[in-house]
Amino acid sequence: MTVLFERVAISGVGLIGGSLAKALKEKKIVGEILGVGRHEERLQRAREDGIIDGYAAHLDASLGGVDVVVVATPVGMIVDLTKKMIPFLKKGTIITDVGSVKKEIVREIAQFIPDTLHFVGAHPIAGTENSGFEASFATLFENSTCVLTPVSTTSPVAVAKIKELWSRVGSHVVSMDCDRHDEILAAVSHLPHVIAYSMVNCLLKREGFEKTILSFSAGGFKDFTRIAASHSEMWRDIILMNRDKVLPAIELFQDYLNELKEAIEKGDGEKLFSEFQKSRTFKRLMKEKEVTPPSSEC
Amino acid sequence: MTVLFERVAISGVGLIGGSLAKALKEKKIVGEILGVGRHEERLQRAREDGIIDGYAAHLDASLGGVDVVVVATPVGMIVDLTKKMIPFLKKGTIITDVGSVKKEIVREIAQFIPDTLHFVGAHPIAGTENSGFEASFATLFENSTCVLTPVSTTSPVAVAKIKELWSRVGSHVVSMDCDRHDEILAAVSHLPHVIAYSMVNCLLKREGFEKTILSFSAGGFKDFTRIAASHSEMWRDIILMNRDKVLPAIELFQDYLNELKEAIEKGDGEKLFSEFQKSRTFKRLMKEKEVTPPSSEC
Repeated sequence: MTVLFERVAISGVGLIGGSLAKALKEKKIVGEILGVGRHEERLQRAREDGIIDGYAAHLDASLGGVDVVVVATPVGMIVDLTKKMIPFLKKGTIITDVGSVKKEIVREIAQFIPDTLHFVGAHPIAGTENSGFEASFATLFENSTCVLTPVSTTSPVAVAKIKELWSRVGSHVVSMDCDRHDEILAAVSHLPHVIAYSMVNCLLKREGFEKTILSFSAGGFKDFTRIAASHSEMWRDIILMNRDKVLPAIELFQDYLNELKEAIEKGDGEKLFSEFQKSRTFKRLMKEKEVTPPSSEC
Repeated sequence: MTVLFERVAISGVGLIGGSLAKALKEKKIVGEILGVGRHEERLQRAREDGIIDGYAAHLDASLGGVDVVVVATPVGMIVDLTKKMIPFLKKGTIITDVGSVKKEIVREIAQFIPDTLHFVGAHPIAGTENSGFEASFATLFENSTCVLTPVSTTSPVAVAKIKELWSRVGSHVVSMDCDRHDEILAAVSHLPHVIAYSMVNCLLKREGFEKTILSFSAGGFKDFTRIAASHSEMWRDIILMNRDKVLPAIELFQDYLNELKEAIEKGDGEKLFSEFQKSRTFKRLMKEKEVTPPSSEC
């Protein structure tokens, strides 16, 4: 296959940016990768590791040569950084992001992006509890889902190119409305993080419990600690930026927990059994579907 | 090493009972294993698989030849089954269990066990989300913790023997009060299961969400579905039997979740960051301690 873009800039060479760089190189999808970031020393190491070909520790004329910029910073920085990069970009450059929240980012960027450039909101749903390019790997996106959130004014050609970029690194690409994306992610990703943090921290608050947990934690609890070990700054920003969707999701969770608690109080074994069976049946369904990709095509 | 017991009966040859049988055989800790259960066909298969040497599908005189009985049934059956087995056991037989809840079991059995027999409450903290002897494996207890809950009248010799049994299959054995055991397990195991069931089910309740979850669930959420796929009957019984400890644990969780929710509502990023950092720091501590066994010796 031919090269999709001659020159790509990746702003934020962390877990996602680093993994994308590795995948793009390995599969020869792009000619050259320019790393953009604040920490020159880290960019230097990323270049030494062969993850990027060159770097810019400041926004400057070197950005003028790229065909696409992937903004892979924490969500809180995407809008500002995009605004600051615009003056350096050549006509026709596509800007895309990897943010876990879309509505605010897409809406704000739409307000200032010039007609000569394109912005395509994107969210590759992939990651681990680790962060930094040291944790990155080329196969991170294989069999993952990548959501694109174009708006009515987004260039279909730009959307098609970003779709191809993510498809070629192994993602199944789907397209949807920003608002719907944010609602779904609040439910299947942001809420689970809030719950995992709550699970771990409500035990840590109990006096003398830290040592107890270390000695007696069983299988289930360890999974919570893994989720709750995710990057604090990143998750603070995601949850605050998407709070309009996260708060109602927390409330639905609270209502349901109260329902279960009431059944426990009443000793209602029948209710508990039938509720627990729902999760169990669903997990089986999930396992069956693991081989089948989602149906809503981009 | 010499054989610890000549003949052992395991009542309930499921994941725990089956794994114990495999470990006892592999390490030559016992001479002969008798499987006890309600389903003759399954016992027959367990014998064909070499997990047990013989079986009793009814409580009968064959139990008179054993030195120890391990009751490895769901918690709701342990007390009744123990009562029914007693008439068949020879003088000096040790009865022990593997129940995840201890206070009710230990208290009830103490009321009817004759002076000629011994009961040692035990809880090997091990398991997977699977059940049945088909899922059993000999190394399940390696590096796990097994809690013994002897009372003042329990024979120290019987306790020492059960301690050796679990030590020799790889468990680190500790001893503690039933009440304390139930409080700790409510926090580190029973509560996490209630929360995981709530997390999965609160999404399943949302209309049309089942397909959405299948398509978009990311890393974190999948861990919840794994925990929530645990055996429904078993977890119903555990949670109801330990509800005096589980309900206060749920309430502490609810209080904490409300605290986080309030911080999200207020947009209090500082609070969210510092709370998230607590979990993250704790996970690091957990990783460091993974090589160190718990300190409270039996």
